[in-house]
Amino acid sequence: MRDEGASEREAGLRAELAAAGRAFGARGWVPATSGNLSARLGPDVAIITASGRDKGALGEGDFLAIDLDGAPLGAPEERASAEAPLHGALYRRFADVRAVLHVHSPAATTISLVAGSGEVTLRGYEMQKALAGVTTHEHAEVIPVLPNEQDTVRLSTLVGERLDHHPDAHAYLLAGHGLYTWGWSVAEARRHVEALEFLFDCELRRLALRGDGR
Amino acid sequence: MRDEGASEREAGLRAELAAAGRAFGARGWVPATSGNLSARLGPDVAIITASGRDKGALGEGDFLAIDLDGAPLGAPEERASAEAPLHGALYRRFADVRAVLHVHSPAATTISLVAGSGEVTLRGYEMQKALAGVTTHEHAEVIPVLPNEQDTVRLSTLVGERLDHHPDAHAYLLAGHGLYTWGWSVAEARRHVEALEFLFDCELRRLALRGDGR
Amino acid sequence: MRDEGASEREAGLRAELAAAGRAFGARGWVPATSGNLSARLGPDVAIITASGRDKGALGEGDFLAIDLDGAPLGAPEERASAEAPLHGALYRRFADVRAVLHVHSPAATTISLVAGSGEVTLRGYEMQKALAGVTTHEHAEVIPVLPNEQDTVRLSTLVGERLDHHPDAHAYLLAGHGLYTWGWSVAEARRHVEALEFLFDCELRRLALRGDGR
Amino acid sequence: MRDEGASEREAGLRAELAAAGRAFGARGWVPATSGNLSARLGPDVAIITASGRDKGALGEGDFLAIDLDGAPLGAPEERASAEAPLHGALYRRFADVRAVLHVHSPAATTISLVAGSGEVTLRGYEMQKALAGVTTHEHAEVIPVLPNEQDTVRLSTLVGERLDHHPDAHAYLLAGHGLYTWGWSVAEARRHVEALEFLFDCELRRLALRGDGR
Repeated sequence: MRDEGASEREAGLRAELAAAGRAFGARGWVPATSGNLSARLGPDVAIITASGRDKGALGEGDFLAIDLDGAPLGAPEERASAEAPLHGALYRRFADVRAVLHVHSPAATTISLVAGSGEVTLRGYEMQKALAGVTTHEHAEVIPVLPNEQDTVRLSTLVGERLDHHPDAHAYLLAGHGLYTWGWSVAEARRHVEALEFLFDCELRRLALRGDGR
Repeated sequence: MRDEGASEREAGLRAELAAAGRAFGARGWVPATSGNLSARLGPDVAIITASGRDKGALGEGDFLAIDLDGAPLGAPEERASAEAPLHGALYRRFADVRAVLHVHSPAATTISLVAGSGEVTLRGYEMQKALAGVTTHEHAEVIPVLPNEQDTVRLSTLVGERLDHHPDAHAYLLAGHGLYTWGWSVAEARRHVEALEFLFDCELRRLALRGDGR
Repeated sequence: MRDEGASEREAGLRAELAAAGRAFGARGWVPATSGNLSARLGPDVAIITASGRDKGALGEGDFLAIDLDGAPLGAPEERASAEAPLHGALYRRFADVRAVLHVHSPAATTISLVAGSGEVTLRGYEMQKALAGVTTHEHAEVIPVLPNEQDTVRLSTLVGERLDHHPDAHAYLLAGHGLYTWGWSVAEARRHVEALEFLFDCELRRLALRGDGR
Repeated sequence: MRDEGASEREAGLRAELAAAGRAFGARGWVPATSGNLSARLGPDVAIITASGRDKGALGEGDFLAIDLDGAPLGAPEERASAEAPLHGALYRRFADVRAVLHVHSPAATTISLVAGSGEVTLRGYEMQKALAGVTTHEHAEVIPVLPNEQDTVRLSTLVGERLDHHPDAHAYLLAGHGLYTWGWSVAEARRHVEALEFLFDCELRRLALRGDGR
């Protein structure tokens, strides 16, 4: 039985996720009902946006509880996002992660397609310091890029294998698909989305000017 | 004589179309009174935005009823969009289409001009799954591009001939003009607009970086 | 002595100009207090935005009356824009022009600098039909580009000489400076701004993809 | 003891800075809690945004007082931005400067990285006249670009040395980091931000079209 504090905490998380969704929607990062947003409620449970909702206009009722395999708990009339297993796998991997945000922006999608080499490396940007634990622009932030895949359970295994080699990653990209990032709070995960979108945008502009973005 | 349910349904469709128009206006997709939005009322009748209105600021009175040739029904003081026959032809072709949306965005217009080969083919994007019935990014979405033409009755015949060869198309482009897409609800057609604009934007960025967009 | 109808008409024009300014401000077309907006009150008098105001946040009091040389009438405490003579010259040239709008957008400014040849020619865009009297995308719209010049009285003479050779022009560009366009109503002039910004944006994207924009 | 006029003046400055932050946030210039905004309260004291706040959504309580070394005065529970010494150094250098604004925009960041030669020179833009004291587009505005550096006390010394050689500069860039600009009022400093962002955007578009931006 959940206590009252728990349901207040949950309401607060829904409100924070909905506010993040509105901000992302205004920037064109969750078009056509794409993207999904989640927050951890406890060791083995999270809330995630229901499938098919406009993530730029979320209401209280647009979330459902899932376990860390991504399976819905209760409320059988709601369908969790097909990508719920990708969220669950991140909560399972990182005990201190409290929020996982997935967006589809033109910058993230384009850079995932032109990167080619299996990762995007960012270096020399002050904005990298918006990523938790990074203290200098001299840091090299390596963002793994994985091939896209429709079987999200299988994909979450592949993601796990890649993250084993990148224990300090703050995010990963799915090629032609979008960005996954996380944080120890909704605010931190949202800061990661904003920082990475900025960095991808700068990097794409720089590639276009250097003429070697192929 | 229309029943009360019918006029409530019509009011709902006007409100949905106006909301779509506001969203498109905020993104710069219906500048200078361009674009037109319609929804089916019945087997042989639709409502469409009146000519010359700002599609980003539509009110209740900015719509009129048309038959499927695009001719106004009643309200002779209002002028239907010159492109009403293009809407009508889509309702006639697809019995289950409930909404047709036409926007002019820089991305749709530019890609229609650089495509050259008579079609735009999208492949490898997760966002393709926002198009009704598409279940994988491996799908190749072919969007026919037709030469522009001022005689919209003649143009609607040409569109029909092209669509005969693309029975699964979700949309078509008019070169230098803009995008037509449709759906079994206003929400689905709006999702198609958002998804296609995203896809055209990504594809143009990718072409610019590859340096072979000519 | 002005009659009551006149002051109601003037209030309406101020409101229309302020609304146009807000829309332009939201798009980034009048940054850093740039741009100026005017409307004709009578054969020899117009109202224009006062110097130094944020054109994206205009109030009732941010306008002053000028004659067609651009000199302020009454209200000596207000300073008319230094570009008032350019507005006056257009009202003098075109007896049926009721509004003149001048904006600084990145697209207009950039295209004025890369055009090189003294004019920008637009062809093949459906959006050209948003320009008064244009009925087909096959029309070639020629927009003269003049070198910039700080003496706006002298500049207005040079503009006049160029417009003598382009009697059907809907607009002109000042190199590195911005766009001037006009219309028989505030709504028409605003439609011209929106259409031309769209067209410049498309044309710049097309030049960038073709790789021959130098 | 501060008088009542002083605390009203301070409240006004907080409101002006918060409004500037909202405008910058809407344009994507202060993503991921980046940027910092300050205003001078007196000869030796200024207010500056507290560390870690979203500069696009500032409230009354998101500021703290600092001396011109950037050290917090009172309110020990608040942390000043790590970049406070860079603000202080500008107030110390220019007795008549009343506001210092620092933003991270994609345009400022990208141009700082492609500039290469240690400075960005702007020439031929009417918008240069939005910079205090500039009266013609023929003016060459030189904006020093400094290498980024995490020790902001040391960095402020380096900035000072560079500004000794550019006594008329209105701004400087930190490579891969962002823009610093100032003015004799919050309004003037904000006008400088808007004008410089416009100019960087135009210059980057021009470089991309000329194909020599490397």
